[in-house]
Amino acid sequence: MEDRLTQPKRFFSDNTASVCPEILQAISAANRGHAVAYGDDPWTQRLDEVLGEFFGAQVRAFALATGTAANSLALATLTPPYGAIYCHPEAHIAVDECGAPGFFSGGAQLERIEGEQAKLTADALALTLDGHSVSVHSVQPAAVSISQATELGTAYRPAEVAALCEVAHQHGLQVHMDGARFANAVTHLGCHPGDVTWRAGVDVLSFGATKNGALGAEAVVFFHLGLVRDFELRRKRAGHLLSKSRFVSAQLLAYVESGVWRRNAQRANGFAQRIGQAAGRRLLHPVEANEVFAELGIEGKESLRAAGFEFYDWGPPAAGVARIVASWDQDEQHVAALCAALAAI
Amino acid sequence: MEDRLTQPKRFFSDNTASVCPEILQAISAANRGHAVAYGDDPWTQRLDEVLGEFFGAQVRAFALATGTAANSLALATLTPPYGAIYCHPEAHIAVDECGAPGFFSGGAQLERIEGEQAKLTADALALTLDGHSVSVHSVQPAAVSISQATELGTAYRPAEVAALCEVAHQHGLQVHMDGARFANAVTHLGCHPGDVTWRAGVDVLSFGATKNGALGAEAVVFFHLGLVRDFELRRKRAGHLLSKSRFVSAQLLAYVESGVWRRNAQRANGFAQRIGQAAGRRLLHPVEANEVFAELGIEGKESLRAAGFEFYDWGPPAAGVARIVASWDQDEQHVAALCAALAAI
Amino acid sequence: MEDRLTQPKRFFSDNTASVCPEILQAISAANRGHAVAYGDDPWTQRLDEVLGEFFGAQVRAFALATGTAANSLALATLTPPYGAIYCHPEAHIAVDECGAPGFFSGGAQLERIEGEQAKLTADALALTLDGHSVSVHSVQPAAVSISQATELGTAYRPAEVAALCEVAHQHGLQVHMDGARFANAVTHLGCHPGDVTWRAGVDVLSFGATKNGALGAEAVVFFHLGLVRDFELRRKRAGHLLSKSRFVSAQLLAYVESGVWRRNAQRANGFAQRIGQAAGRRLLHPVEANEVFAELGIEGKESLRAAGFEFYDWGPPAAGVARIVASWDQDEQHVAALCAALAAI
Amino acid sequence: MEDRLTQPKRFFSDNTASVCPEILQAISAANRGHAVAYGDDPWTQRLDEVLGEFFGAQVRAFALATGTAANSLALATLTPPYGAIYCHPEAHIAVDECGAPGFFSGGAQLERIEGEQAKLTADALALTLDGHSVSVHSVQPAAVSISQATELGTAYRPAEVAALCEVAHQHGLQVHMDGARFANAVTHLGCHPGDVTWRAGVDVLSFGATKNGALGAEAVVFFHLGLVRDFELRRKRAGHLLSKSRFVSAQLLAYVESGVWRRNAQRANGFAQRIGQAAGRRLLHPVEANEVFAELGIEGKESLRAAGFEFYDWGPPAAGVARIVASWDQDEQHVAALCAALAAI
Repeated sequence: MEDRLTQPKRFFSDNTASVCPEILQAISAANRGHAVAYGDDPWTQRLDEVLGEFFGAQVRAFALATGTAANSLALATLTPPYGAIYCHPEAHIAVDECGAPGFFSGGAQLERIEGEQAKLTADALALTLDGHSVSVHSVQPAAVSISQATELGTAYRPAEVAALCEVAHQHGLQVHMDGARFANAVTHLGCHPGDVTWRAGVDVLSFGATKNGALGAEAVVFFHLGLVRDFELRRKRAGHLLSKSRFVSAQLLAYVESGVWRRNAQRANGFAQRIGQAAGRRLLHPVEANEVFAELGIEGKESLRAAGFEFYDWGPPAAGVARIVASWDQDEQHVAALCAALAAI
Repeated sequence: MEDRLTQPKRFFSDNTASVCPEILQAISAANRGHAVAYGDDPWTQRLDEVLGEFFGAQVRAFALATGTAANSLALATLTPPYGAIYCHPEAHIAVDECGAPGFFSGGAQLERIEGEQAKLTADALALTLDGHSVSVHSVQPAAVSISQATELGTAYRPAEVAALCEVAHQHGLQVHMDGARFANAVTHLGCHPGDVTWRAGVDVLSFGATKNGALGAEAVVFFHLGLVRDFELRRKRAGHLLSKSRFVSAQLLAYVESGVWRRNAQRANGFAQRIGQAAGRRLLHPVEANEVFAELGIEGKESLRAAGFEFYDWGPPAAGVARIVASWDQDEQHVAALCAALAAI
Repeated sequence: MEDRLTQPKRFFSDNTASVCPEILQAISAANRGHAVAYGDDPWTQRLDEVLGEFFGAQVRAFALATGTAANSLALATLTPPYGAIYCHPEAHIAVDECGAPGFFSGGAQLERIEGEQAKLTADALALTLDGHSVSVHSVQPAAVSISQATELGTAYRPAEVAALCEVAHQHGLQVHMDGARFANAVTHLGCHPGDVTWRAGVDVLSFGATKNGALGAEAVVFFHLGLVRDFELRRKRAGHLLSKSRFVSAQLLAYVESGVWRRNAQRANGFAQRIGQAAGRRLLHPVEANEVFAELGIEGKESLRAAGFEFYDWGPPAAGVARIVASWDQDEQHVAALCAALAAI
Repeated sequence: MEDRLTQPKRFFSDNTASVCPEILQAISAANRGHAVAYGDDPWTQRLDEVLGEFFGAQVRAFALATGTAANSLALATLTPPYGAIYCHPEAHIAVDECGAPGFFSGGAQLERIEGEQAKLTADALALTLDGHSVSVHSVQPAAVSISQATELGTAYRPAEVAALCEVAHQHGLQVHMDGARFANAVTHLGCHPGDVTWRAGVDVLSFGATKNGALGAEAVVFFHLGLVRDFELRRKRAGHLLSKSRFVSAQLLAYVESGVWRRNAQRANGFAQRIGQAAGRRLLHPVEANEVFAELGIEGKESLRAAGFEFYDWGPPAAGVARIVASWDQDEQHVAALCAALAAI
């Protein structure tokens, strides 16, 4: 099985990556004796404090096993069933979660707003909200969800987030950030984690670790503490309150406290930078996190695949666009080989 | 922290237990290189085969992180939103899942049927179904859910399950088994896992490993294969499709293949037997799995707690009833001490 | 068609009754020229004032076409999706609405509390609520729903309602009253409509007119005004905001202002009294509204049916119990014939 | 009140119109004696036959009080909760029903497809469906909903509907038609009602009468009979099964049998034609039903309003676009005055 697993040069997704040693060790270390279940264990009880320090603010933080759960539970807390959730058409919540926000919220409606580089802009949001009826005939604007980094591998600047949040709050909406690749974005921006979240006005963050070296660990981090009780009941009801919560919380603690969040993100981002440079003029978007989008043409894609590189088409196969994702544990030689292959197209 | 964690003599729940070494080792072993995400990995792809052998039937099996998710996703697959789900008033789905079946099914209605030892009987089910209107004014009978072992620590005999399933199927209902403590029940019964499931007519099983030595791993096992596509979409939509699925599947494979499912259950059941014998005439229900229910009186409970034993009240505290749960990793000395303390009440 | 419609002696339900002339006239009278749609018409805009005068309190009142909609929309406004709604096992919401409360609320759970004459008692409610866990593992007690008159034709006294509401409010629950037969109950009690509603603590009432002479008109009347905006959005979203609202509002205005609510109820109740007296010792419950429950035996029921009387079995046919409902427009001769037939059994 | 109601020259919506005499008479005529409730009355039982003749096909037809209910109940029958419903961005279901399809379906996702004149085209639908992933990560294409007439007052030709249905069915989707203004469209097209529905492949139709002279009556007409049982249960559960169903069914029977469906539509369409001609080059879309969209400029709108004409802005007020709707009962003199005023802008 060894060969079959390690030989392919996988650039499919950071979800294919392994668990980094620090986090696996933290899981083992948490396996001592009996611990009270459902979050009343010492690991889970440290989450608020440790993530509060990480963000530089008072927070309430909750451990979850998946990013879809984190996003949808957070959004269901922000919107009534008759609410509208504004997002980019490329948003993971709109495209890749099988309608989860509709399920968790009791049928809230996604409203897509176009924007370059998969980003919402404050202006486009303001224009949309100003034109939206608030009569009982319409869904009621309730929440905005932005992805950091975006689905096209770009990162919102703190000022961009702040401008969006200002428009949202002026209209009575709350702001959710899908941070499945939050570490990649913050590492690229070189800012403090608080700068693109609560200081810019974000109300609740899905803080992902799974794609960046954890086994399966996401935190929903509330900067708006009044929403928490509703969240906790929704989480339980959705089967996302883990009985042996300590093993997910221990991952999150290790992720933040050991600094692997930054180290892993730096590695993945660095690989993406090299790949992006190799793609050269074929590059479709700035490489700011760990994803590279390149127009390789059908033949270009085929040649890479023939050489053993695995990646997804982006859009219809005939469009010739490849999405290449670098993981924290990518083999250096694979990356070098990919760069060479790209340059040769 | 060591002292704080290991010193209390915890008989709260098998959810407080640690992960058994074989399973932790399987997680580490799965951490090799890149694996395709969302279940297309070699571990997850072996689940059907391995669980099929375990049950002696063709099955489709799906890895999940929690028992509430397993139960509710299975039930949502069995019932339309206007369906009725029949269960015992003590059922975990009715009491301990914050209304999860209502959420996952889009509002199906729980109908409780009383029965001794937390068991449904075929006769009571038949009586209820015969008296239930099937006009459009009524919720439509859709599913039966039974717990094996029950919430009172008793185990359904194969013939009891078969009689229930026969009544259910005659009325057009499908049968779900909540097997959070399935290993404990089967070990007690000494039967084949197939005998109390598909051979008796069960359509879908929540097969729990978490309470019996896993870190967080449950399988939904379908014996009725036609339901599977609907389940898969509901699972994704509910945020319960794990991206790094290999680490949950690896637990399930190790649980079954290494035999720890039986070894751990035998240990836990054995402890419960000793405790039950010590409780003597105070015992409220036969001890058939790893739970002991005993009427200790308020003073009896206080004396145990004063001696460092932790357990839950069952029902209102004034009723004086204790629920004592033995885990696979219970400290032998703690068990011996508890037995002595019980005998002294 | 005339013969086919009028000859049977129908005591099935007050839903089989015709529309009383005053109300049909009000519909015709509202059919003048154009009126702004969706409730911004002069009829609908008088509802708050007219019903406010009727109840002797400031209210917000909303016109609806069906009682199931009134009940479920009101309840959905009172409970989160993870809430519990307490009701009697015989409650219309539990038995006759195909799970509507679960649908409208996003999956709230019905919890039944037994009580004589289909009534909840304050003591039973208190006992249930005191024993209910409020941990995240449980559904959260949210609302109580009582029927006035009850499904067994009895009426809550003002003091009974007040005692229930006090317990509910002490525990943080809100109280809904299903008043599909509110006029029948109030007429029997001889009290002011406010006495068994807001003065006793009821938060929201489904005020039915359909069974008592309207064509199809129910009002949801809020005594707790803070809930209204949520209700209005849920109503629209559920397809229950009527575009030509004037024609339902006009029915409600005529029902209250012309006094037909009382006149019709007195007629129906009077018929029921006569029927109840004729039933004599076969009577199962006090006749306080317009329903009669009598143990006639299988043969007794057959003899009545052979004579052309139509009514429903109550419970399994073999139980021999009949539910006989008197409508406002019951033919006097049919009633007399029924009384004679009952006396002859 | 007379003056206040009849004086304004209302072109807001055909929902402001009165009930036509034939339909009011049918309601009165149905008010004879007792009739079995909940649809088991002689009027409701004739719906299938009468609408079957109208459409020239075997149908199952159900009476409802509102168009939002008709649309959403029909769609909920066509899509699982994880389904995608394709519609035009201007669709009533997307814009004017407060998210009702999301509520009734348990969270299905609306996917908008642009098209001129508020129409979907077969090509655009094919392109969208071909590009849509069917993995479990995506919502699953389930239904197409088109409006006849459209929200911009245009009518789909039979060949356009047939082409759309062919694409939909090829991809496994079912087709719903929102026929709130079906009579206006068919009258304009001069075709048989079957030509733009079942003969073209439509699976289920919301057949509206309310906007065209009824008091409140819509039918859901199934050409695909296998869906009916699910619909009936969803209808009851949603509070849309009317107890005194005869009074809605009688409206539908009169609407179809007396021919007022066509007479009223012809009148309204004729008014719209005259208004459209008066609007001249300001007209934005062809006038094919009873709606006129004209770019009047801010001053033009103001001058009309100053003269007592009432209508809605279409889009932001600053865009200067008016939506003028002609009802069946529009005052001829008002129409003439409006035409003169438009010509004078």
